[in-house]
Amino acid sequence: MRTLVLLFQCRDQLGIVAKISDFILKHGGNIVTADQHSTDPQGGYFFIRIEFILDKDQYSKKDLIAAFAPIAQDFGADWNLYDLAENLRMGIFVSEADHCLVDLLYLWNAGELKVKIPFVLSNDEKHRKVVASYNIPFYYVPADKDNRREAELLAYAFASTDFLVLARYMLVLSPDFLKKYNKDIINIHHGFLPFFKGADPAGKALKEGVKVIGATAHFVKDELDEGPIIAQEVQNVSHQDSRDDLIRKGKNLEKRALASAVSSYVDYRIIKHENKTIVF
Amino acid sequence: MRTLVLLFQCRDQLGIVAKISDFILKHGGNIVTADQHSTDPQGGYFFIRIEFILDKDQYSKKDLIAAFAPIAQDFGADWNLYDLAENLRMGIFVSEADHCLVDLLYLWNAGELKVKIPFVLSNDEKHRKVVASYNIPFYYVPADKDNRREAELLAYAFASTDFLVLARYMLVLSPDFLKKYNKDIINIHHGFLPFFKGADPAGKALKEGVKVIGATAHFVKDELDEGPIIAQEVQNVSHQDSRDDLIRKGKNLEKRALASAVSSYVDYRIIKHENKTIVF
Amino acid sequence: MRTLVLLFQCRDQLGIVAKISDFILKHGGNIVTADQHSTDPQGGYFFIRIEFILDKDQYSKKDLIAAFAPIAQDFGADWNLYDLAENLRMGIFVSEADHCLVDLLYLWNAGELKVKIPFVLSNDEKHRKVVASYNIPFYYVPADKDNRREAELLAYAFASTDFLVLARYMLVLSPDFLKKYNKDIINIHHGFLPFFKGADPAGKALKEGVKVIGATAHFVKDELDEGPIIAQEVQNVSHQDSRDDLIRKGKNLEKRALASAVSSYVDYRIIKHENKTIVF
Amino acid sequence: MRTLVLLFQCRDQLGIVAKISDFILKHGGNIVTADQHSTDPQGGYFFIRIEFILDKDQYSKKDLIAAFAPIAQDFGADWNLYDLAENLRMGIFVSEADHCLVDLLYLWNAGELKVKIPFVLSNDEKHRKVVASYNIPFYYVPADKDNRREAELLAYAFASTDFLVLARYMLVLSPDFLKKYNKDIINIHHGFLPFFKGADPAGKALKEGVKVIGATAHFVKDELDEGPIIAQEVQNVSHQDSRDDLIRKGKNLEKRALASAVSSYVDYRIIKHENKTIVF
Repeated sequence: MRTLVLLFQCRDQLGIVAKISDFILKHGGNIVTADQHSTDPQGGYFFIRIEFILDKDQYSKKDLIAAFAPIAQDFGADWNLYDLAENLRMGIFVSEADHCLVDLLYLWNAGELKVKIPFVLSNDEKHRKVVASYNIPFYYVPADKDNRREAELLAYAFASTDFLVLARYMLVLSPDFLKKYNKDIINIHHGFLPFFKGADPAGKALKEGVKVIGATAHFVKDELDEGPIIAQEVQNVSHQDSRDDLIRKGKNLEKRALASAVSSYVDYRIIKHENKTIVF
Repeated sequence: MRTLVLLFQCRDQLGIVAKISDFILKHGGNIVTADQHSTDPQGGYFFIRIEFILDKDQYSKKDLIAAFAPIAQDFGADWNLYDLAENLRMGIFVSEADHCLVDLLYLWNAGELKVKIPFVLSNDEKHRKVVASYNIPFYYVPADKDNRREAELLAYAFASTDFLVLARYMLVLSPDFLKKYNKDIINIHHGFLPFFKGADPAGKALKEGVKVIGATAHFVKDELDEGPIIAQEVQNVSHQDSRDDLIRKGKNLEKRALASAVSSYVDYRIIKHENKTIVF
Repeated sequence: MRTLVLLFQCRDQLGIVAKISDFILKHGGNIVTADQHSTDPQGGYFFIRIEFILDKDQYSKKDLIAAFAPIAQDFGADWNLYDLAENLRMGIFVSEADHCLVDLLYLWNAGELKVKIPFVLSNDEKHRKVVASYNIPFYYVPADKDNRREAELLAYAFASTDFLVLARYMLVLSPDFLKKYNKDIINIHHGFLPFFKGADPAGKALKEGVKVIGATAHFVKDELDEGPIIAQEVQNVSHQDSRDDLIRKGKNLEKRALASAVSSYVDYRIIKHENKTIVF
Repeated sequence: MRTLVLLFQCRDQLGIVAKISDFILKHGGNIVTADQHSTDPQGGYFFIRIEFILDKDQYSKKDLIAAFAPIAQDFGADWNLYDLAENLRMGIFVSEADHCLVDLLYLWNAGELKVKIPFVLSNDEKHRKVVASYNIPFYYVPADKDNRREAELLAYAFASTDFLVLARYMLVLSPDFLKKYNKDIINIHHGFLPFFKGADPAGKALKEGVKVIGATAHFVKDELDEGPIIAQEVQNVSHQDSRDDLIRKGKNLEKRALASAVSSYVDYRIIKHENKTIVF
C-alpha cells in the first residue's frame, strides 16, 4: 500500500469534502485521516489535509494529479498531492551552536524524521566530525557578516534541496537569496515571536524578569523573524535562573520547537495562509 | 442557521466519508468541522464527528435522521445526530467539597457550558444557598454509607436529565442504580486513573513521593473508578508540598479535568469505544 | 505557636545568614523554611525569606522588630517582619468581566487565600449580588473613561486596605492615584507581558498566529502594564482556536496567574527588586 | 574561589541553621544558595543544602570536614561535604535503545553535565562507534537474561565509578550486585512510577486509554522499579497517538527525566529520606 497526502485550500463553499472524498473513493483510495479547518463557513477560507492509502498497482501519483486538477480548478484551490514514501530533501545550515543540529541528526538516524539530508553546511568547521559520523556531506563555507558568500550557499541549496532548515544559522539571508531560492526555509528563533526579536533573548528575559521563556520555529520571510509561526515551546523560569540557566533551558526549547516544526513539515501537515500556519 | 453534529462509528471500510459528505451536501448542509479516526484502516474501527450548518427552513433533524438511517445501516454503524441548539440536561450530584460544583455553575452561568441544569442534588445541606443564587432547584437527600437512598436519587435523575455529573459525590452508586438509570454518568476522580484508585490519593502521593499528581474525569461503569477516561490533568509537585498543598493543587486539577470532560460531552465531542474514549 | 516571616534584602556580604539565624535562635524561634537568593555573591544583591515559629508567650512582633533593627541596619538592609496570622486587607476593583472576582472570592471563602476582603468595588452594578452572598461590602462607583472618580476610589482604598487587586478593572489608574495610594497594587494582564500590551490581546494573538498564549500578573507602576512581573501562565493554542476560544482560554490563564500572584503576596513570598520580583 | 556543597539531614531541632551558618562564616565562606526543608518543625526531619564559596588558599575540604564533624555529631546528622569542582564519575549501562545514551553524551560534551564518564557499557555492540567518537571507553559485555555476567559488570563499575546510570539497560541487576556495588544507581523507567511497572508501558497506556503518559527517573533498590523517585516528566496524549507515537513521545520524556535526575545528582541537589527524595 502507498500513503498519499492531499493538502488543499480554497474559499469555503458547499460540497468540497463530498467532491474530494468521492474522487478518492472512485480511485480506490481509503481515507486514513482527514483534518479540516474553516476560518468562517460563510465567506471564509477552507483547508483540508487528507491522508489516504492506495494499492501499489493502482493509479500513479501523476495520474491522480491529472485527474484531480479539474476538480481543484472548479473550487479555485491551491493544492498539492504528496507520496509519504518520497522523502523530502532537507538542507541544514548551522553556525556555532550545535544542539539543534545534533538533535535533527539523531532523530533522522533513529528513523523518527522521514527526510533525506543531502548536506550540512556551516560557517564553523568544528561540526565536520559529527556530520561525517552520519555519512552526510559537510560543506564548510566560511561566511561571516562582511561576506555572506550567498552565491555558494545558494549553489549548494539549489542543487539538492526541497527545503532548508536554519538550525541556529546566525547570518541573515538576504531578500535576494530568499527570492532566488524560492522554496521553504524553516528557522528556529530563540525566543517568543512576535516578541524578543533579534539578538540576546536571554539577556532581554533577565532584564524584564519574565517568568516564562519560549522558542519559536517559523518560516523565513523577507523580514528576519517575521514569517509564519509553526511551533512554539515554553517553560517556566524564576529569579533563580541565571543567564546560563536561561540559555540552557532555551536550547531545550529550541530543539523541541524545531524538531516539532520540521516533523510537521515533512509529514505535510502544514498549510500556510496569509501570515499564519494551519498545522494539522 | 442551525448547527448539527453527527457522531458515527463503524468497522472501517471504503467510502464512508464520501457517502456521508454526499448526504450532507444533498441536504443543503455545509460541513464546518470534521474529525475522524481509524484504529486501523484495514480491519479496524472508524470514528467520525461532523459538524455542519443548515438553513433554518430546511430539513428537520427528524427528517435527516430518517433519511440517513439506511445509509448508516449499510455501514453497520452506531450513530446519532444532534442539534447543538438543543442543550443537554445535566443533573449534578455533590457531597461536601464544593470546588467542582462552584466551577460548573460559574461556567454555565457565564455561557461557557452549553447545558441545562435541572437540579443540584447533595447529601450536604450547605450548598443550598449558592445553588439557589443561580435559581437552580436544590434537592437535599441525606444519603450516607448505610442508606444511599438510591430510589430518591433515581427518581430525580430519571425525571429530568440526559446525563449526570458526579462533582465529587462521595457515595458509590450501585450497579442496580447504574442499570436503571442507563444514561451516561461522568465522575471526577482525584488522582491518576488507572492508578491511585479509591480513597486518599493525597496520602498515597505523599507516601510514594511522586513528583507529579493528576486528576481524571471518566465515565462511570459498574466497577468504581473503572470507566473510560475522558480527560486528565497533571501538575508537578515536590517534597515541599504538604498534604494540604497536594489537596489544594488536586482540587484545581479536578476542576479543570471535569470542566474539560463535561464541555467535550455537551459539545458532542466524545465517542466511547470499548473501554476508551475518542475525544475530538 | 505563632509563625513569623522575615523578608530581607541587602548588598551581598559575609555573615548575613549566620547573624539572622543566630538572632532567631536567641529569641527562641525555630526556622521552618528559608529561601535565599543572590544575584551575585560578589557585589550583588542578597534576598532572604525566613519563616520561623515561636511560642505564643515569647517575644512580641514589636519586640522582635526593635531587637532586629540594629542588625538590619548594619547590613544596610530593606526588611520587614510579618505575622502570618495577621491577614492582609485586600481591596478588589473589578469592571465587567467577573471570572477573576469569582475565583478570588471562592478561594477566600474556601480558606485557600489567607486575606481579609474589606470590599469589592466596581463600575458595574451587576456584581452586587454575588459579592453580597459572601457578606462582603460592595461599592458601586460608576467610573468611566471620562470621569474616573479617583477621589472616591482612593477614599475607599485608603481607609481600609493593605493592598489592592485589579481583578480586570479596565480603567487606568492615574499616576496621581498611585502616588497618593502608595501601597502595592496587583493587576492581571490578559497577555504575555512585556508583550501584547494594551487592549485586545486575543485579536493580536489571532492576527500573529501565535501557538501559545499567556496571562501575566504584575505590580502596577506609573506606566500601565509595566510593573514587575509576579506570575505568568501559558497554554498552547492552534489555528482551531477562534477568537472566543482564545478569550475563554485566556480567562482561565488570568484566573490562575492572578490567584497565584495574590497567594504569593499574602504569604509574604514576594520581594521586589529593581523592576523584577523574587518569588520564593 | 572554590564552591562547596553541604548536604545535611537530622531530626528537626533548634539552632541548626545558626550553627551551620556560623561555622561557614568562621571559616571564611560566603553562602551562595541555601535550601532547607522540614517534614515537621516539631518532631520531624530536617534537610538542608548549602552552597558556599571559599578562597582557594583557605581551609581544605578535609580540614572543613574534620572541623564540622563534631557539630554534625551533636545534631545526630547524616551529612557530607562536596567540592563542586571534583566531578563525580558516572558509569553508563545501556542496552539497545540509544536515546538516553546519546542525550547524556551530548549534554556532557556540551559542558551542561558536570561529570566524568569513565565508560559506557552495553550488551549491544552497535553503540561502540558513537561512544568512541567522544573518546570514551566502550565495554561490550554480551549479557542476556540467561547470563547476566554480573561479575564483569561489577568489575568495571567497582573500579572506576561513583555512581551508575542505567540509561535503558534492560537486564535486572540482582540484589547481590546491588549489595556489592553499594553506591547509587539511577534508572529511567518508561512510565509513571509507582504505576505501569514492568514491561511494555506503551501497550498498557493504549489499553487503558490514558490521556497522559510519563517517565520516571529513580534510584534503584532491591525491588525493580521501586526505589525513590527523583524526577517525572509528563505529556498529554490522545486517541490519535498510535503505539509508535506513544513510544516516540515516551522517549522524549525519558530523556528529559533522566537528564534532570542526573543533573540534580551531580550538582548534589538530592537527599534520600525513607523511600523518597528531597530534590533542591
